[in-house]
Amino acid sequence: MAEIPYKIYLSESEIPSAWYNVRADMKQKPAPLLNPGTGEALKASDLYPIFCEELSNQEVDNDTKWFDIPGEILDFYKMYRPSPLVRAYCLEKELGTPAHIYYKFEGNNTSGSHKLNSAIAQAYYAKKQGLKGVTTETGAGQWGTALSMATAYFGLDCQVYMVKVSYEQKPFRREVMRTYGASVTPSPSMNTNIGRKINEEFPGTNGSLGCAISEAVEAATTQEGYRYVLGSVLNQVLLHQSVIGLETKAALDKYGIKADMIIGCAGGGSNLGGLISPFAGEMLRGEAKYDIIAVEPASCPSLTRGSYVYDFCDTGKVCPLAKMYTLGSGFMPAANHAGGLRYHGMSSIVSELYDEGLIRATSVKQTDVFDAAVKFARVEGILPAPESSHAIKVAIDEALKCKETGEAKNIVFGLTGTGYFDLVAYEKYNDKVMDDYIPTDDEIAKSLANCPKI
Amino acid sequence: MAEIPYKIYLSESEIPSAWYNVRADMKQKPAPLLNPGTGEALKASDLYPIFCEELSNQEVDNDTKWFDIPGEILDFYKMYRPSPLVRAYCLEKELGTPAHIYYKFEGNNTSGSHKLNSAIAQAYYAKKQGLKGVTTETGAGQWGTALSMATAYFGLDCQVYMVKVSYEQKPFRREVMRTYGASVTPSPSMNTNIGRKINEEFPGTNGSLGCAISEAVEAATTQEGYRYVLGSVLNQVLLHQSVIGLETKAALDKYGIKADMIIGCAGGGSNLGGLISPFAGEMLRGEAKYDIIAVEPASCPSLTRGSYVYDFCDTGKVCPLAKMYTLGSGFMPAANHAGGLRYHGMSSIVSELYDEGLIRATSVKQTDVFDAAVKFARVEGILPAPESSHAIKVAIDEALKCKETGEAKNIVFGLTGTGYFDLVAYEKYNDKVMDDYIPTDDEIAKSLANCPKI
Repeated sequence: MAEIPYKIYLSESEIPSAWYNVRADMKQKPAPLLNPGTGEALKASDLYPIFCEELSNQEVDNDTKWFDIPGEILDFYKMYRPSPLVRAYCLEKELGTPAHIYYKFEGNNTSGSHKLNSAIAQAYYAKKQGLKGVTTETGAGQWGTALSMATAYFGLDCQVYMVKVSYEQKPFRREVMRTYGASVTPSPSMNTNIGRKINEEFPGTNGSLGCAISEAVEAATTQEGYRYVLGSVLNQVLLHQSVIGLETKAALDKYGIKADMIIGCAGGGSNLGGLISPFAGEMLRGEAKYDIIAVEPASCPSLTRGSYVYDFCDTGKVCPLAKMYTLGSGFMPAANHAGGLRYHGMSSIVSELYDEGLIRATSVKQTDVFDAAVKFARVEGILPAPESSHAIKVAIDEALKCKETGEAKNIVFGLTGTGYFDLVAYEKYNDKVMDDYIPTDDEIAKSLANCPKI
Repeated sequence: MAEIPYKIYLSESEIPSAWYNVRADMKQKPAPLLNPGTGEALKASDLYPIFCEELSNQEVDNDTKWFDIPGEILDFYKMYRPSPLVRAYCLEKELGTPAHIYYKFEGNNTSGSHKLNSAIAQAYYAKKQGLKGVTTETGAGQWGTALSMATAYFGLDCQVYMVKVSYEQKPFRREVMRTYGASVTPSPSMNTNIGRKINEEFPGTNGSLGCAISEAVEAATTQEGYRYVLGSVLNQVLLHQSVIGLETKAALDKYGIKADMIIGCAGGGSNLGGLISPFAGEMLRGEAKYDIIAVEPASCPSLTRGSYVYDFCDTGKVCPLAKMYTLGSGFMPAANHAGGLRYHGMSSIVSELYDEGLIRATSVKQTDVFDAAVKFARVEGILPAPESSHAIKVAIDEALKCKETGEAKNIVFGLTGTGYFDLVAYEKYNDKVMDDYIPTDDEIAKSLANCPKI
């Protein structure tokens, strides 16, 4: 076997030609979306007014194992994929660990994160359906950035509802989206009924992700030729993101490396679900065993402290209900800088795999995460996004355990993106004014009490 | 010959093992640095108080053709090199040109630019000499970022003097440097004699690159165990940056592609000089012919409107004199956002090659540059730095000429970095409030009148 390079690059011909649908290998399927009015399970056609038809079909399809990736999407993937699987030689040396650490780096594209993998797919299906454009919400801005790139590529209009506090605090994110031709509206806005209502009830509010989702859905369903798109949580998104895991597995296989642990940060579950899909599939089929760890912020611990119930996905309660590990749709996470991990719920697929014990979860504190991020940056030369750094933190912890035990485990983690737009958070860390708020049991219980009774 | 992929990746074993010194193939050598007091040519040992010894030796060595790259530097290079040579299929399609466009993308590392290639080399030699740390100046911040990464890697102290206006307008650049452990001081500061003098003479001044250089040099020469490092202009920097050109040529050769045109942006000349080195070498040896174009901003046109004379490199006039195309050391470029191209002078090597007619030069207006940048970003999925976009602008112009003539030229350009930290400029462009100031002949003549009489 050849020496393992710092970066394992696959060739363009090794980009997966199909997405893998882990649901096909799950005996217990993830729970279906429900109509919030009637409580009935939604069929694909029920979703057509909100999502593109092909995406609606993907959303409810628990049986088709492989979905061919259309050629136009593959051509776009070739501009930034395959992404490298990096052997963290320098980090290993810094830690003095016998463990072998690998990370799948998804930040090598202008959007700066893995979100582009699904954004380009969703834009493609919108274009194929002959739509004029799409609407979406964005919090930290990674998803909005990715989507604006994807819609620019296919010549679609893109309307982004950006949580007001992010719109004001992250003007550069906003400018990237505008540069790619998207219109960006601070949410709650006066453009939608739900926005006007929220502005009236809570004058001067900073907005929230749940509110921006409601606005984007309303905007999609009230404009001719528009549909709503979402960057995480949904089954379709995890399907597209399986490209991360498939490439990771192909790169490991190429060098005869068997992963022992697979670690990913988990907000809505798009990265984690994509990264672990093929590995979880092997476990579900009884072909292999991996120690899979979902890492979430202690400030928003849906897996480790939430309940596995049906809940609302948005503040306005216009979206379908999803069964998931949730902290309650009214849960307001503390100002944790990992904006991408501040969602109250979790992908139904990840929730089900977790509930079955196929994966485990842990939560980490913000300051510890930034300690790990800075250590990583200084030796590996990549400034990681705060979200990604949750995985780094646990990978380092596990590598240090190996140092104690002398085990040479193969630790694989997902580095979902870069931190170029998160320098306000780094500044707080550098100035030692970062907070580590953790919600109380009482806060979580109160929020969970408002879940629908189903 | 295999189909040309979107991204030509070399393997790690194909990273050049030696830097190429184009001076060895130049019949007319670039003019030596002169002592500003005596006007005498400087030997390597004269530079030892300012630069590390090995770097001083590299600076004056016009004869050694290849310098072996030390293993420690190669190990660092492996973390982000070889960088991809990208075939711009999508841009070609957008333009409808028969030309084949390739770009060497140097933005795939956290510093976000090619500057890291020399930063890691300079940090290595400082470490090897047993120094405590280095000092430098930074304007736009690309160089300071790269250097802070490199010094963090080798455990050296790093003191950055950042032009005050950039320090205030680019807080995120500053935070990246701090995250990598550098201390960042707005210049002019009260830390140095020259800084105090300038602050006294010009209260409230915003600073300039020439002033920050003077401060950094003073800081290096008055602290035990420190030396000064510089990210462009110098021969040693172009030597290290030859890695860009060597990889580009190796990638082209691998697929049997003969470049017709090679285009690079030119500020101090670090990227252009590195990119073209091996190609210029072939021309100097009479082995090949290329159309090489240096692109500079119309607001700071040292090659196209400057004079080829000896000039000061800094405001404080503490640095050696260099013979170069210059606009005069007192030239104050308009607030062009391509901060990395705002230097009044140009690398002596590039100046000499230009003077001999081996390369040609052109200048472009800022708004046209951003037009090109946005067009490129939307189809190629990379948000380019304003500096890099100067090359994009001319590459697009040349590709459109090919569309008229029907020629299928191979156009290669250097994409030196990403624009993540340049969103203020993009915002101005998006808001259509970008200016296009071009200096008058009179302004340039007045500035040139202050060059030393040698």
